[in-house]
Amino acid sequence: MLYEHLLWPKDLIDLDQFTTEHLTAVLDAAENFREVSEREIKKVPTLKGKLVVLFFHENSTRTRLSFEVAAKRLSADTIALSASGSSMSKGETLLDTARNIEAMNPDALVIRHSASGAPSYLGRRLKCPILNAGDGAHAHPTQALLDLMTIRRRLGRIEGLKVAIIGDIAHSRVARSNMIGLKTLGAMVTVAGPPSMMVGGLSDEYGVQVYSRPEPALDGADVVIMLRIQLERQSGRLFPGAREYARVYGLNAQRLALAKPGCLVLHPGPVNQGVEMTPEIYDCPQSVILDQVTNGVAIRMALLFLLVDNSERKGSQPLA
Amino acid sequence: MLYEHLLWPKDLIDLDQFTTEHLTAVLDAAENFREVSEREIKKVPTLKGKLVVLFFHENSTRTRLSFEVAAKRLSADTIALSASGSSMSKGETLLDTARNIEAMNPDALVIRHSASGAPSYLGRRLKCPILNAGDGAHAHPTQALLDLMTIRRRLGRIEGLKVAIIGDIAHSRVARSNMIGLKTLGAMVTVAGPPSMMVGGLSDEYGVQVYSRPEPALDGADVVIMLRIQLERQSGRLFPGAREYARVYGLNAQRLALAKPGCLVLHPGPVNQGVEMTPEIYDCPQSVILDQVTNGVAIRMALLFLLVDNSERKGSQPLA
Amino acid sequence: MLYEHLLWPKDLIDLDQFTTEHLTAVLDAAENFREVSEREIKKVPTLKGKLVVLFFHENSTRTRLSFEVAAKRLSADTIALSASGSSMSKGETLLDTARNIEAMNPDALVIRHSASGAPSYLGRRLKCPILNAGDGAHAHPTQALLDLMTIRRRLGRIEGLKVAIIGDIAHSRVARSNMIGLKTLGAMVTVAGPPSMMVGGLSDEYGVQVYSRPEPALDGADVVIMLRIQLERQSGRLFPGAREYARVYGLNAQRLALAKPGCLVLHPGPVNQGVEMTPEIYDCPQSVILDQVTNGVAIRMALLFLLVDNSERKGSQPLA
Repeated sequence: MLYEHLLWPKDLIDLDQFTTEHLTAVLDAAENFREVSEREIKKVPTLKGKLVVLFFHENSTRTRLSFEVAAKRLSADTIALSASGSSMSKGETLLDTARNIEAMNPDALVIRHSASGAPSYLGRRLKCPILNAGDGAHAHPTQALLDLMTIRRRLGRIEGLKVAIIGDIAHSRVARSNMIGLKTLGAMVTVAGPPSMMVGGLSDEYGVQVYSRPEPALDGADVVIMLRIQLERQSGRLFPGAREYARVYGLNAQRLALAKPGCLVLHPGPVNQGVEMTPEIYDCPQSVILDQVTNGVAIRMALLFLLVDNSERKGSQPLA
Repeated sequence: MLYEHLLWPKDLIDLDQFTTEHLTAVLDAAENFREVSEREIKKVPTLKGKLVVLFFHENSTRTRLSFEVAAKRLSADTIALSASGSSMSKGETLLDTARNIEAMNPDALVIRHSASGAPSYLGRRLKCPILNAGDGAHAHPTQALLDLMTIRRRLGRIEGLKVAIIGDIAHSRVARSNMIGLKTLGAMVTVAGPPSMMVGGLSDEYGVQVYSRPEPALDGADVVIMLRIQLERQSGRLFPGAREYARVYGLNAQRLALAKPGCLVLHPGPVNQGVEMTPEIYDCPQSVILDQVTNGVAIRMALLFLLVDNSERKGSQPLA
Repeated sequence: MLYEHLLWPKDLIDLDQFTTEHLTAVLDAAENFREVSEREIKKVPTLKGKLVVLFFHENSTRTRLSFEVAAKRLSADTIALSASGSSMSKGETLLDTARNIEAMNPDALVIRHSASGAPSYLGRRLKCPILNAGDGAHAHPTQALLDLMTIRRRLGRIEGLKVAIIGDIAHSRVARSNMIGLKTLGAMVTVAGPPSMMVGGLSDEYGVQVYSRPEPALDGADVVIMLRIQLERQSGRLFPGAREYARVYGLNAQRLALAKPGCLVLHPGPVNQGVEMTPEIYDCPQSVILDQVTNGVAIRMALLFLLVDNSERKGSQPLA
């Protein structure tokens, strides 16, 4: 496997840290770990005796659960810490809370935070590996990696594919990390969304093609990633309403017909059915949304494996 | 042991799934597992490498704790998921949340839900074994099984006993599952409660004798199960008040004297002392309320053992 | 090691249970366990198969986390129970909740409670070892032990040192347990705080010297323990405000210069920077606040080791 010959960073902040080789190595390692989750005994001793702290300053079900399952399948111990039960409510700064966690000698700190840059800020100040589980509108690298894995498993490659990302591009950490990862692996990326949900400069910064309507973005696409609309945050402000959004941007059979036959449908979840896509699309064979969840555990196992004590890993085997 | 020769269902929804033989087999297996909790090392490797997800959509201390202890004593990993920390608050349906959990390949999903029928609904749609930890006013099969175990341990049998169930029969999942289990094992069951807490047809549906006053129900009883009054939900609506309830339906020394000498007193907990029973009854030698808690862990160990990977279990031994 | 020859109590309530020999034995055991947290595999099989229940009736990040890490490093299983998710909200008494937990056969119950005396009350009524993780304004013995460990590691001894404790002495369980532990091990203790935060009789009860101003307390001190001001509870009542408090009682370079050169600065955390001490003091080399956190895990490992099944421990080795 490639990863033995590569240098790995201390922290996972975003996918711009990774070369094509790194990304490929993560996906390859994840393929091995995916097999573990299908065994009778779904566990390997890789991180036995290690402690992974899950610090979720923003609510999350599936990402927290996915990291927790991943850590346990590697035989690591886990401790989950949410903002409400933490000292944060006592007025302690993020850095002080993190330093206190680090003083207990964890082997990795997985963090989700509403502030863009929080994981990077901590990574520069702590010795412990930091894994970004989503920070503000900045990055969500494990989500992007599981999307890449899902696409590669189904279509056999990333290079040369046309991938459309549709929705609230401006506020989406999922879109940002995906644009980086997809471009690094040689995909052609198109994005589309309402004007209020787009920012300028995407074309220059990420090398993607920008549209205001979904139709040209979808035209001939191999893959479409529908982003989640944060109804609870934005309704009535950035767009007229869920129904209006669904009518113009939502994925339905007619719009999907513009893409290539068999075009994959991805969504980071949870899906607002009837808004981002119709229930029919959600349940159709091209929808790989639950595959994404399954692959997410494998991707997080791979990253914990690669970043925790990677100085010690040389020569060892990932699976036992 | 019997369970080797029996077919076990994929899910545990309610006790009407079980024959006399099944019920006896669960109680027998639980007796073996009860001994594990009394060892120096309270753990067996039975479910090593398995993942049990505890999805409690309704608050619970003891049932959640009991399942968690049971799973850990079988060496399974556990992940607890409450409604407040889940995507449910983001508007996802129960089925979608459950499908997402299933995509992470857990080996069992324990669910408590305020909606009657939720576990059965999920059981028909997911491949993963579902264990009902209480659904609305429908069923609470593990509670009934631990009641059966507590009675059988103390009195040596269920068949031919007279068991009185007193309280809010209409809204009690505990009563419903107990009526089924007790009748299957050959007990004679009487129920009593205020008119506002009774429903018609109990006699026909469950073969129990129905009274409005507790005295005839208690007359000559071997066992009395006092149900919990949901003071927080019902006060001032279904009955005049806690004091009035205690006066007419609460168990005190005088009422208990109507039952057989040594009549066992059970309660699913938490007890409203001074309402469902006097503090003297709660603490008397006939009260087996804490035995119920101890047996609850053993029952849940037995059920997790019997339902998780039961296709693989043939020929294996439950204890190591 | 000493602990083999000593009798250990069933419960840890406060440090007045311990002789000099006991305290020294705990610190010695903790030194051994501290080394475990620095290993590649940070885990020993000491409490394999044991169950530690963490019952935190009052919010806490670091103490709960520290006990949880300690228990996991000893290979125990842990279950955390907070007040909000418990039956307490259903009107059950503390004793009933604890009895129900005990009926599940845990090997230790770690409890934090807002009511002084709660751990002692439970300890007298339950067979299971109770470890006090802080009760009201009464005691916080593991915090005091980690302070003792931090001092002894840095200065080589406790006996003969001058230790100043500054802040809200009246409401501080940390101060109370520290006064007992420090005096038992032969330190000279001075305390200082605003009149509204002092109580009479400290000098008689604990043999400490009491001042209203911090300067004489600090004069020639080897160690200063700054207490946390509960801004969220007291602002505007016991003292004019945070700024006023900082001006008169806060630790700054000028005040610290009154102490011995190299005087250690401790704080139980979380620190209100700019109130109890300036940011410069917080980050200076004499500040051992993060050492306290690291040592806290080791102290809790030692206590769990010494109190859980200590009848079985005779002749066994703490580390494997």
